[in-house]
Amino acid sequence: MKKEILVKMDDREGAMDLIAMSSDEGVGFIAKRLKVGDYQYKNIIIERKEISDFCSSILDGRLNRQVENMKKEELYGKECFIIVVGSIKDRTADIHENCILGKMVSLVIKDGMRLLFCDDDFQFVYLLKNIIEKIGDKDEV
Amino acid sequence: MKKEILVKMDDREGAMDLIAMSSDEGVGFIAKRLKVGDYQYKNIIIERKEISDFCSSILDGRLNRQVENMKKEELYGKECFIIVVGSIKDRTADIHENCILGKMVSLVIKDGMRLLFCDDDFQFVYLLKNIIEKIGDKDEV
Repeated sequence: MKKEILVKMDDREGAMDLIAMSSDEGVGFIAKRLKVGDYQYKNIIIERKEISDFCSSILDGRLNRQVENMKKEELYGKECFIIVVGSIKDRTADIHENCILGKMVSLVIKDGMRLLFCDDDFQFVYLLKNIIEKIGDKDEV
Repeated sequence: MKKEILVKMDDREGAMDLIAMSSDEGVGFIAKRLKVGDYQYKNIIIERKEISDFCSSILDGRLNRQVENMKKEELYGKECFIIVVGSIKDRTADIHENCILGKMVSLVIKDGMRLLFCDDDFQFVYLLKNIIEKIGDKDEV
């Protein structure tokens, strides 16, 4: 039987449908209240943002606080990622695209964040699993 | 009059329409044969990939060679970026999405590349300009 990776998921994520859809990938979730990020596995921290939440968290300053928290964790050897689900053109938030693009550039240049994009939650779960596998490989080298 | 940023563009890019559309951003292009990347400005190197080209360059190994070349340039202080234009779901290349997602994870984890995504060439030009402005700011600190 395929070994299941058990990932801690913030209990406010509410994306419980992920659990069902992800069963084929051998990933399971345990809901917990997390202080940093939405998903954690060993030293990996992942902030998942649907595009409209990404936009609103730029507007209300939440993203800045979340990034500062992740940067503090990186000082202790944590590996942090932001995964945006959806395209800029799919946003519903009232924000100019240049504001989003500029923030993306800041995240990779000024904050040194690792940013990934995907179309939907199926792809998100695959990214999550693949990051866990590859960080695991890297740690073993 | 607004100062124009003059960016070297590989003469095989063929995206001359970018020149016209980008005039509002104060970015101009000079076509040259570039050894690394598609766009260069001072110490900045940008590889631009439309999603289908991103996919085909994974399949035929070109992306690996391009990344290796960029990593060599980073040793000399160059700041390298890969910008993907379009969503995974828009690809025409015959490649499973997991293969693309896995490569994206490798690019950020194993190769330490800075990866950005956008929807179209208007957004691409804005990203290009914003990277130039922000790397400039960073250099001045």
